[in-house]
Amino acid sequence: MDELQAVQWKDGKVLILDQQKLPNELVLLSISDYKNVVNAIKALNVRGAPAIGIAAAYGVVLSVWHLGDGDRAAFLETANQAINDLKKSRPTAKNLFWALEKMRLVLSNNLNRPLNEIRRVLLENARRIHQDDIQRCKKIGEHGAGLIAIRSTVLTHCNAGALATGGYGTALGVIRAAEDKGKKIRVYATETRPLLQGARLTAFELMEDDIDVTLVCDSMVGYLMQKNMIDAVVVGADRIARNGDVANKIGTYSVAVLAKQHSVPFYVAAPLSTFDFDLKSGEEIPIEERHADEIRQIGSIQLAPEDVAVLNPAFDVTPASLTSAIITEKGVLKPPYPDGIDKLKINS
Amino acid sequence: MDELQAVQWKDGKVLILDQQKLPNELVLLSISDYKNVVNAIKALNVRGAPAIGIAAAYGVVLSVWHLGDGDRAAFLETANQAINDLKKSRPTAKNLFWALEKMRLVLSNNLNRPLNEIRRVLLENARRIHQDDIQRCKKIGEHGAGLIAIRSTVLTHCNAGALATGGYGTALGVIRAAEDKGKKIRVYATETRPLLQGARLTAFELMEDDIDVTLVCDSMVGYLMQKNMIDAVVVGADRIARNGDVANKIGTYSVAVLAKQHSVPFYVAAPLSTFDFDLKSGEEIPIEERHADEIRQIGSIQLAPEDVAVLNPAFDVTPASLTSAIITEKGVLKPPYPDGIDKLKINS
Repeated sequence: MDELQAVQWKDGKVLILDQQKLPNELVLLSISDYKNVVNAIKALNVRGAPAIGIAAAYGVVLSVWHLGDGDRAAFLETANQAINDLKKSRPTAKNLFWALEKMRLVLSNNLNRPLNEIRRVLLENARRIHQDDIQRCKKIGEHGAGLIAIRSTVLTHCNAGALATGGYGTALGVIRAAEDKGKKIRVYATETRPLLQGARLTAFELMEDDIDVTLVCDSMVGYLMQKNMIDAVVVGADRIARNGDVANKIGTYSVAVLAKQHSVPFYVAAPLSTFDFDLKSGEEIPIEERHADEIRQIGSIQLAPEDVAVLNPAFDVTPASLTSAIITEKGVLKPPYPDGIDKLKINS
Repeated sequence: MDELQAVQWKDGKVLILDQQKLPNELVLLSISDYKNVVNAIKALNVRGAPAIGIAAAYGVVLSVWHLGDGDRAAFLETANQAINDLKKSRPTAKNLFWALEKMRLVLSNNLNRPLNEIRRVLLENARRIHQDDIQRCKKIGEHGAGLIAIRSTVLTHCNAGALATGGYGTALGVIRAAEDKGKKIRVYATETRPLLQGARLTAFELMEDDIDVTLVCDSMVGYLMQKNMIDAVVVGADRIARNGDVANKIGTYSVAVLAKQHSVPFYVAAPLSTFDFDLKSGEEIPIEERHADEIRQIGSIQLAPEDVAVLNPAFDVTPASLTSAIITEKGVLKPPYPDGIDKLKINS
């Protein structure tokens, strides 16, 4: 999967692997205006909480990379404008705001240096966010693999893989690490309507890595669990509140209820950059509502009456009580969470 | 909806409204060879447990309609062959076998009559199965409407509507009857992957009837219930075992678990022709496994890697313990079921 990076910085451009086109086409978007990074995040050309944080960080670099050195005020204003625009690209994933806050701090700590040096430290910082994320994923994988028994069948929802992160993946990182330890994992991937990240990205990623994967519809999770075909669920997260409530792709909550009902362990894999210590509970997490046509159409094909009313929340919130553990780069948190999660704050 | 009949007999042909093309195109298949009725059932051009029973009954008539009067043995052999072929078209819905058994009985009770009279009684019987089903649906609607409070928001899965039956519908019959009583019902329809009967058929039917309907993905049911947006669930059934276990469209079981978890009443609406008194429990109901490409593709669009492994069960079984009531044309059955359901046998 090394060549399939969700986001790269190259020669003064942000390269984004267009995840709306995968797996049918490998299209690399070469972006030289940060506003198109905003657009790529909005349009889900890049998606996955850690990956959009990384894309946003490079977007800030891009906003000032091609500016002249003459006007310091314009330079700083552009960088701040980019941070603000990128912040508004999507509302739910914490990693976006976390990465942009890191970029804002670097900017404000280096305000008086030559503009070229500011560019350099911004790029260094974006690269660090990117590289750190890969390392965090690998540590998540290490910690999580210990929870997965040999010859387990694991269900995952949406894509929390290499394509959703700097590389390696969170939920898929756990699966990869378990597989690397010779545990012979079998995976059921839900297709994840409406945008089919499971069908298009998770199935694709796992097949590329020769991991045994079977695709099912989202509605088949209950059937699989009723027939005792699932040993564990591992999903990623877009934002985790202080009490351990988890916002993740719509449908995650249904999977968690079904897992609880069938005594299947339900694991969430996420770096600390996903945690929002300012939020007491998941009820405070803003849930993005996306366009009705995501459900009414696929490509040029009309799936439903053109004018049918649609509700299209992109995420839901799984209460901490339905999770068996949250797997982070610092280790595995088990419920009850509040103390443990608050202590993590110092390390994040 | 009167003109939108799933199945009709007209001028020696079986007319099937192609439900794979709805709602984008209204295509009426005009079938004069019973083998194409078999194919239409297999390909889901006609679907819905009661509707395939009706189509099969007309298919038996069709098999002998155009035969000459010279060869009685060939006539009877063709009719029996048609019954056998139609029986094998799909494995799960009881109504198919129920309707074919009625046709077989009519045939064996009239073996020695002139062939033209046999044709006539077969057609009369198929028409009776069809007309009875509409009346059964209306009675189901009457009985079920009493369970639905004024201004309720009802969730339904798949299509148990006019298009799935002789007309009016089972689950949608309950919703139509409640609406007719001025109860101002709001409906959430799940799109029902992989074949999108909810998006294509339920949304379409309800909009045609000016009933307030909102389309959601199957994965959004948990979200809706978590937010207390659903007052009741009403679904149809493909087969109901003696203990009240219900086979219905894949995903129904997940909805039932979520409904139980959120204390939302879960109603099953089905005529007695759906009951299989020979089966002790839902575990004995054969579950159809359909082709992987139903999940991997929509029309010409590839949704997943071409060679990804897929599991595609078309139905699941909801245990009686998760149902709040089964609404039949004879009245509303409430758990515990076994006694009540066995008594119904004499009336079926």
